[in-house]
Amino acid sequence: MNIRALVWGENVHEQENEIVRSLYPQGMHTTIAQAIAADGDIDVSTVVLQDPEHGLTEEVLARTDVLVWWGHKAHRAVDDAIVERIAARVFEGMGLILLHSAHFSKIFKRLMGTPCALKWREAGERERLWVVNPRHPIAAGLPEYFELENEEMYGEPFSVPEPLETVFISWFQGGEVFRSGLTYRRGAGNIFYFRPGHETYPTYHDSNVGLVLRNAVRWARPSGPALTSIHKAPNVPVDQAIEPIVERGPKLHKPGEEGYK
Amino acid sequence: MNIRALVWGENVHEQENEIVRSLYPQGMHTTIAQAIAADGDIDVSTVVLQDPEHGLTEEVLARTDVLVWWGHKAHRAVDDAIVERIAARVFEGMGLILLHSAHFSKIFKRLMGTPCALKWREAGERERLWVVNPRHPIAAGLPEYFELENEEMYGEPFSVPEPLETVFISWFQGGEVFRSGLTYRRGAGNIFYFRPGHETYPTYHDSNVGLVLRNAVRWARPSGPALTSIHKAPNVPVDQAIEPIVERGPKLHKPGEEGYK
Amino acid sequence: MNIRALVWGENVHEQENEIVRSLYPQGMHTTIAQAIAADGDIDVSTVVLQDPEHGLTEEVLARTDVLVWWGHKAHRAVDDAIVERIAARVFEGMGLILLHSAHFSKIFKRLMGTPCALKWREAGERERLWVVNPRHPIAAGLPEYFELENEEMYGEPFSVPEPLETVFISWFQGGEVFRSGLTYRRGAGNIFYFRPGHETYPTYHDSNVGLVLRNAVRWARPSGPALTSIHKAPNVPVDQAIEPIVERGPKLHKPGEEGYK
Amino acid sequence: MNIRALVWGENVHEQENEIVRSLYPQGMHTTIAQAIAADGDIDVSTVVLQDPEHGLTEEVLARTDVLVWWGHKAHRAVDDAIVERIAARVFEGMGLILLHSAHFSKIFKRLMGTPCALKWREAGERERLWVVNPRHPIAAGLPEYFELENEEMYGEPFSVPEPLETVFISWFQGGEVFRSGLTYRRGAGNIFYFRPGHETYPTYHDSNVGLVLRNAVRWARPSGPALTSIHKAPNVPVDQAIEPIVERGPKLHKPGEEGYK
Repeated sequence: MNIRALVWGENVHEQENEIVRSLYPQGMHTTIAQAIAADGDIDVSTVVLQDPEHGLTEEVLARTDVLVWWGHKAHRAVDDAIVERIAARVFEGMGLILLHSAHFSKIFKRLMGTPCALKWREAGERERLWVVNPRHPIAAGLPEYFELENEEMYGEPFSVPEPLETVFISWFQGGEVFRSGLTYRRGAGNIFYFRPGHETYPTYHDSNVGLVLRNAVRWARPSGPALTSIHKAPNVPVDQAIEPIVERGPKLHKPGEEGYK
Repeated sequence: MNIRALVWGENVHEQENEIVRSLYPQGMHTTIAQAIAADGDIDVSTVVLQDPEHGLTEEVLARTDVLVWWGHKAHRAVDDAIVERIAARVFEGMGLILLHSAHFSKIFKRLMGTPCALKWREAGERERLWVVNPRHPIAAGLPEYFELENEEMYGEPFSVPEPLETVFISWFQGGEVFRSGLTYRRGAGNIFYFRPGHETYPTYHDSNVGLVLRNAVRWARPSGPALTSIHKAPNVPVDQAIEPIVERGPKLHKPGEEGYK
Repeated sequence: MNIRALVWGENVHEQENEIVRSLYPQGMHTTIAQAIAADGDIDVSTVVLQDPEHGLTEEVLARTDVLVWWGHKAHRAVDDAIVERIAARVFEGMGLILLHSAHFSKIFKRLMGTPCALKWREAGERERLWVVNPRHPIAAGLPEYFELENEEMYGEPFSVPEPLETVFISWFQGGEVFRSGLTYRRGAGNIFYFRPGHETYPTYHDSNVGLVLRNAVRWARPSGPALTSIHKAPNVPVDQAIEPIVERGPKLHKPGEEGYK
Repeated sequence: MNIRALVWGENVHEQENEIVRSLYPQGMHTTIAQAIAADGDIDVSTVVLQDPEHGLTEEVLARTDVLVWWGHKAHRAVDDAIVERIAARVFEGMGLILLHSAHFSKIFKRLMGTPCALKWREAGERERLWVVNPRHPIAAGLPEYFELENEEMYGEPFSVPEPLETVFISWFQGGEVFRSGLTYRRGAGNIFYFRPGHETYPTYHDSNVGLVLRNAVRWARPSGPALTSIHKAPNVPVDQAIEPIVERGPKLHKPGEEGYK
């Protein structure tokens, strides 16, 4: 069965800025979705910030294997309740791919638990992404490195948790470095942060970037049904202990009582 | 210079429950603080939920090296703004030690970004903590394992991120296991989760538990001054790039403009 | 295309011990191979210690996606040169699954770089494997825990490097715990250590164990062609630097000279 | 009590090459030792390859807290038995710091279990080390980045295991990046790899490099007495099980028998 990916686009720059519109006339989300769909093994839809519930209803998320996120100017416009809804689905196993300025999205900061800050410079300089983990599935088919002739610079320190694995590290013409491809697991969900993709450059038309996007969606797909039990902290009654035990000592909770949250 | 530790106590069970009061007549926070102070190299204060601002003013946190947290019944009573204030200090380098039911505290969930759920059973059963990382500083001076004859059971899966290092794993009489000592770094701050400490048992009077608390405070202390820069995402102007570069291509931001958050 | 797995069996206990032979009349490797082949998506062969080159010629390894290893009594009989040959293939991307007493195999110690020691007791006691990482691909389809009524005990501390992820933790009847499922990447190769499988018990006839074996083979498969470049430390000539640079200062090596190894 | 550091020098280039001798007239090991001793809290000795047993007798290693290693041309001249002796001490808790070309030393490859290969270019180009983990103890007191105006380039992929934490990432003038400061724990021992230090440049006279060396020695010191138990895989007799159990089922080993290694 095909993987079901959903690309979420902020869709603001495209409406306001002529440069961005000329690069992405149908919106950045559309170009991103086309890159992901290119091999035919991934079914891709798109939704945008301006849709009801930002396009992220319970029903839509329930049938999404991997969510791909591009946002920048309107991070604060994303509803907190929907951020929690996305987080819950990640914990249950939905994959999540965060692109570029999504380092400051509510959902990424929510899942990382850290500031996710960095340095930046918008000078159209050269970025060279080195593959430091050459057979990680997300790097499949890539050369040793690939270049983006014009990109925004992001510089370290990038205040995120130590990742499971570092896949890419970027070299910038102006003298900085950046961990450009980082993997995480949160609950049952696989998370990938991928640095490139400033709105004023044609990054999502680049073939290597497209390959990374497809690889990342394949890597992030769930390995089983939704882990809905992750939201519960069940009491195990004494008489249902796997190994027979006898209750001892004082206790606070009454039988069958819920724990405190 | 002595390490400056601050023990935060929820201080509710002690007021409401005769069993807890009899075990901890001056409050659980006081017993925890006494254990931490026992070697004389750590200066310890205590504050409680009921203090103004829960005792956690900017001034108090600014002079705290390591915060130790015990909470259970009143997680929701902790003010969100103060949770953010603590998180900010952790990012700057303050150590944080979470005890037992603090797995569901707002501050732990905030920093982990995950549900932090688990199984539980209150039967006074035997817990045996195995040291799986025998020369980790937090395990210094401990035997191969130590036992708590009466404890609440916490069982896996514990929905937290993969830790930097696992220090302890618990065996429970009723058949479960639990990762009982886990280390994390978030921003510049060291974080340690330590499982034991149910309020109806004398856990914080145990000498091995006291040793772990002291070791953990020493391990978690900051290695330098507050990293206040972690809250900023500075723009690096093109003419201040370390390596000279020439601005190219279109850009979105005006010179000196702030980034979007 | 089917995954190509190769099961390596030490094949000594089966020849010497009536109990083992009665449990595994065609050899433990055969039972392991049958479990792996059960779903039809994996092509499985077997080789044994006693084969020429232990069955692990360059040709055989070159066409192996995932090698599964069971050894115990004859670790020292494995030729060092063949251990290096296997390691080289792992670095190039071949998956490797180490079973039970293979914790002391030359190849596991070679790849971990640590003693890989542990406690043990042969008492036919109950082992309960808890899934601590519920949607890790290796745990797909498993219940919360599964039991082996008679197993050898392995106890912590297990002196291996901190893993990428911990998948299983075992509870033992006699009071110990053990990290029973650990993942690593070494070079381009995925490695999984799986604890159960003492030769005097019918462990490899257990359906949950069989499911883990199949999942592990699928998880460990290479994500691309052999990374043969991993064995080289190439000199990048100054005039082929990606960014033009001018050679400066003194140097030790002559142009085109090999580095020191 | 002062930390006891031991600097091991290969001491070959200094004898053969006029450039190296002019930079390090008393040997590279002496300059490295002076940098480590500068604050007075670390007692430093030096030994060299040419000493009996390379200066690394059991007695010397037994009283060493942290061993610092610089080697390049004569990796193969280091005796395998002494490599194993060092490894054993690391497992017991001795810290180990590997400098620059020590990425290909026998002891580093032994402990990592991987090829430890990389790209290189000797062009005296600029290296800029970015601190990506700003309050890691090894980065204490450093600015955001520091530069070495003339260094050898090392480029990714660096075939080492995923580290516990990445402390530094280098930018090179010719277009490459490299993970320049990596931490590991192997057994009870802390390990730090630090990239800079090519013999034809004055790197070990640099004040930031000296600060990193001192920080690293302090970070790597053991947190307790030698963990000699790590070399054993003890049998736990059934009648000494912590929780009483009854032996069941068939068994292979006789009471008191050693396990197979």
